[in-house]
Amino acid sequence: MNVDIGNALGSVADPGLSRTDLDELDERVADAHDRIARGRADGEFGYAALNLPERADPDEIRRAVDGFDPAAVLTVGIGGSALGAVTLTRALGGDSPVDHYALDNVDPTHTERLLADLPLEETVVHAVSRSGTTAETLANFLVVREAMESAGVDWTDRTVVTTGEAGPLRALADRHDLPALDTPAGVPGRFSALSTVGLVPAALQGVDLDALLAGGQAAADALAGSLYDCPAYAYGAVSQALDERGATTNAVMPYAESLEAFAEWFAQLWAESLGKDGGGQTPVRALGATDQHSQLQLYRAGRRDKLVTFVRPRERPSSDVTTVPETDVEALSYLGGRDLGTVLDAEFEATEASLAAAGRPNVRVEIPRVDAESVGRLLYDMEAACVLSGELAGVETFDQPAVEWAKNATRGLLGGSDAEEADAVRQKTELVVD
Amino acid sequence: MNVDIGNALGSVADPGLSRTDLDELDERVADAHDRIARGRADGEFGYAALNLPERADPDEIRRAVDGFDPAAVLTVGIGGSALGAVTLTRALGGDSPVDHYALDNVDPTHTERLLADLPLEETVVHAVSRSGTTAETLANFLVVREAMESAGVDWTDRTVVTTGEAGPLRALADRHDLPALDTPAGVPGRFSALSTVGLVPAALQGVDLDALLAGGQAAADALAGSLYDCPAYAYGAVSQALDERGATTNAVMPYAESLEAFAEWFAQLWAESLGKDGGGQTPVRALGATDQHSQLQLYRAGRRDKLVTFVRPRERPSSDVTTVPETDVEALSYLGGRDLGTVLDAEFEATEASLAAAGRPNVRVEIPRVDAESVGRLLYDMEAACVLSGELAGVETFDQPAVEWAKNATRGLLGGSDAEEADAVRQKTELVVD
Repeated sequence: MNVDIGNALGSVADPGLSRTDLDELDERVADAHDRIARGRADGEFGYAALNLPERADPDEIRRAVDGFDPAAVLTVGIGGSALGAVTLTRALGGDSPVDHYALDNVDPTHTERLLADLPLEETVVHAVSRSGTTAETLANFLVVREAMESAGVDWTDRTVVTTGEAGPLRALADRHDLPALDTPAGVPGRFSALSTVGLVPAALQGVDLDALLAGGQAAADALAGSLYDCPAYAYGAVSQALDERGATTNAVMPYAESLEAFAEWFAQLWAESLGKDGGGQTPVRALGATDQHSQLQLYRAGRRDKLVTFVRPRERPSSDVTTVPETDVEALSYLGGRDLGTVLDAEFEATEASLAAAGRPNVRVEIPRVDAESVGRLLYDMEAACVLSGELAGVETFDQPAVEWAKNATRGLLGGSDAEEADAVRQKTELVVD
Repeated sequence: MNVDIGNALGSVADPGLSRTDLDELDERVADAHDRIARGRADGEFGYAALNLPERADPDEIRRAVDGFDPAAVLTVGIGGSALGAVTLTRALGGDSPVDHYALDNVDPTHTERLLADLPLEETVVHAVSRSGTTAETLANFLVVREAMESAGVDWTDRTVVTTGEAGPLRALADRHDLPALDTPAGVPGRFSALSTVGLVPAALQGVDLDALLAGGQAAADALAGSLYDCPAYAYGAVSQALDERGATTNAVMPYAESLEAFAEWFAQLWAESLGKDGGGQTPVRALGATDQHSQLQLYRAGRRDKLVTFVRPRERPSSDVTTVPETDVEALSYLGGRDLGTVLDAEFEATEASLAAAGRPNVRVEIPRVDAESVGRLLYDMEAACVLSGELAGVETFDQPAVEWAKNATRGLLGGSDAEEADAVRQKTELVVD
C-alpha cells in the first residue's frame, strides 16, 4: 500500500495541511508509535491485533476446514464477526466455485429467502461469536440448525465454530464434537479479519492464507516512527489532522467493485474505534465510479467537512470481453477499443482532480492489485492507521461502550432481563404525523 | 408513510426543535408548499417529478415488456438510471423467479464475472440513459452486446431501451426496431424511480405497477401546506431544520434487508439535490440491526452532528422457519419461540431509545409493510421531502453542476475532447509515502 497525501496539502485544499503542520504532526506520530510498539510488545488488549499476522496459524485453520468440499459457506455472525470475512471473500473469492454468504441480520424475510435458496446439503456453516451469546448470531444459528434438520441435513457434519474459551457456543461445539477455533485473545472483533474469524470462509474458498498473512506481516514490518516513512501512519495521521481541522467526514471510495465491502469494513473500524467522547470522523461508504453519479456533487460543492479517501489497485486484469468494441457512433468513438479498466482509471483520476480543483482534501491509497498479499497488507495498514488515529485523538480505541445500552434494552424487551433500559424504551416521546 | 418526530424535539435531543421552532418552520413550509404546487401545476423542470404517479403509463411499460419471459433482467445504467430500479426490485422482487442485476460501474473484473454468470439467452437487457451518451452506460452496453453476439444470442431480441427523444441510444433503438420508452420529460434521473426508468425491471419481475403508482398518487394527494398535516413535509422540514442547527449528517437506517437499497437511493436523492452552495446534509447509508454492531457507537457517542432516520415496516411476515427454536441453554432461553421479526423490532426500539437517551436526534419513518403500494408511497414522500428541503435551503434542487468537471476531464483523458480539465488532472500535486 502506498499513500499520496499531495491533495491534502494546504496548497491544494481547505482544510489542508502545511509542511509545518505535517512536521508537527510527525512529532505526535513518533510518540504514538512508541505507545503502539509498547502495547504490541506487551500483548495489551487491542494492540495485540497488530500481532495477528505472526500469531495466526493458517495450518490450524486449514485443518479445521479440511475434508469439506462445499458449494457455499454461510457465516453466521454480526459486526466484526462477519465484516472481515465478507471483505476478504468479496475481494479474493470472486472466481472461487464456493459462494460465501453472511447471515448478519435478524430479518425474517431475508433469512427465509436465503435458507430457501442455499443448497443446505452442500453448505458449511461458520458460526462466530466471541461471547457465544450474541443475540442475533445465536438466534440465527438456532434457526439455521433447525432448517438443516428439517431438510434432513446433519448440521453437526457441516458446522465450524469460532468462539471464545467458554460460553454456549463453545459448550455446543464440545457436545457435538464440532471443529472449533478460538477467537484471538485480546483482539476486538473489528480488528480480527486476519484471524480465524475472517480466514475460515476465505480458506474454504481456496484463498491463499499464507499470502494474506504475508501481506499483513509486511505491513507490520513497515511500521515506523514517522509518517514520512510509513504509509499506514501517513494515512492515519493525515485523516486525524484533517478531522481536527474540520474534515469530520471520511468518505472511502474504492475504485473496484471487489473492494466495495472493504469500505464497509473500514466504516466499522473507524466508527467503533474513534466515535467516542463527542468526536470521531464519520465514515461514509462510497464506490467509484458509480457514486460519481450519486455523491460527487455533494463532495465537491457541499460543506467543507469531508475528506475523500480513494482506494484503487494499480493493475487490473483486462480481456477481450471487457474491451469496448469499436463503434461508428461518433459521440462514442472515443470509447472504442478502450478496456473498461482504462475507462475506470480515467474516471478515478478525473474525480480526484475535480475535488482538488475545488479545494476539497482527498488522499489516494493504492495497492498493486487486488490479490491476497495486497489485501492482507491493506487491511493491516488500515488497522494500524486507525490505532494511530486513536492515539492522536486520545480515545480508548478498543472499546465500544455506547452499544451496551441498546443491547440491555433489547434483552429487557424480549423478557431476558428486567433491565431499566427497557422501561426507558416504553416511555418514548411521540409526535406522529400521518 | 407516517413520521414520528418526537425524538427530534428539544426536550429529548440536542440539536433539537422546540414547539416554537416547529411553528416558525411551519410558516416556511407553507410558502415552500405554494412554490412546489406552482411548479407542479406548470410542469416546471424538476417539480414535474412530483406529477409522475399520474403521468406514468403502466400499460405502455407492460406492452414494452410483453412477450419476454426471462430468468434475469440486466439494467445497464448508472446513478439515477439504476438506483430506482435497484430499489424497487430489491424491495419488491425478492420472491420473483426473475433476478435483477444492475451494471452500474465500469469495473472490468466485475463485468466479466457478471457476464460469465448470467444466462445470456434468458436475459433481458434494459439500457437506460437520458442523453444516450453516458460514457459508463454506453461502454457497458457495447460490451454486453458483444458478449451476447459471441454467445450466439440475438441481442436485438432481448433489449429494451429507455432514453430521451434523440441521441445515440434512440438512434440505435430505431435502427434495430427495439422496444423503446421515453425517459420522463423534465425529471432528473434521481427523481425518476416511478417512471419508465425504474418500472421496467419491476414489471419484468411481475411487480404490481398499478399498486406502486397508486402509492405514489396517495402521497401526492397527501401533500398539504403544513408539516403537521403532511408526513413528507414533516420529514423534509425537520431534517432541514436540524441541519441548520448542526445535524449535518443524516444516517438513514432501514430495519429491513429489502430496504437496504432504499438507503442508497435516498443517498443519491439527498446528496445531488441538496449538496450545493457549501451546504447540504451528508447522507449515510446504514442498515438495522446489522449496523448496531458497526455504527451505533459513533451515532450515540460521537459528534452531535447527526440525525438518524429509522425506516421500518410495521408488519413483517413470520413463519415456522423464522421462529427461533426453544433451547435449553439458559443464557439464550429468552430467544426461544420468538420470531426473528420480533427480535428485529425489539432491536429497533432499543436502538432508537438508546439514541434518545443520549440526546441524539432521530426520526422514525414507518410504512405499513414492504409492498408495492407502501414502497411507491415511501419513494414519493421522500422525493417530496427532498424538494421541500431544497426550497427551505434555497438551493437549485434539480441540477448537479459539480459533476460536470470530472465528466469533461474523463472524456479529455480518453481522447474524446481536448478539455482543459484533462490538463489539470495531469498536473497533480504529489506527496507519496510508500
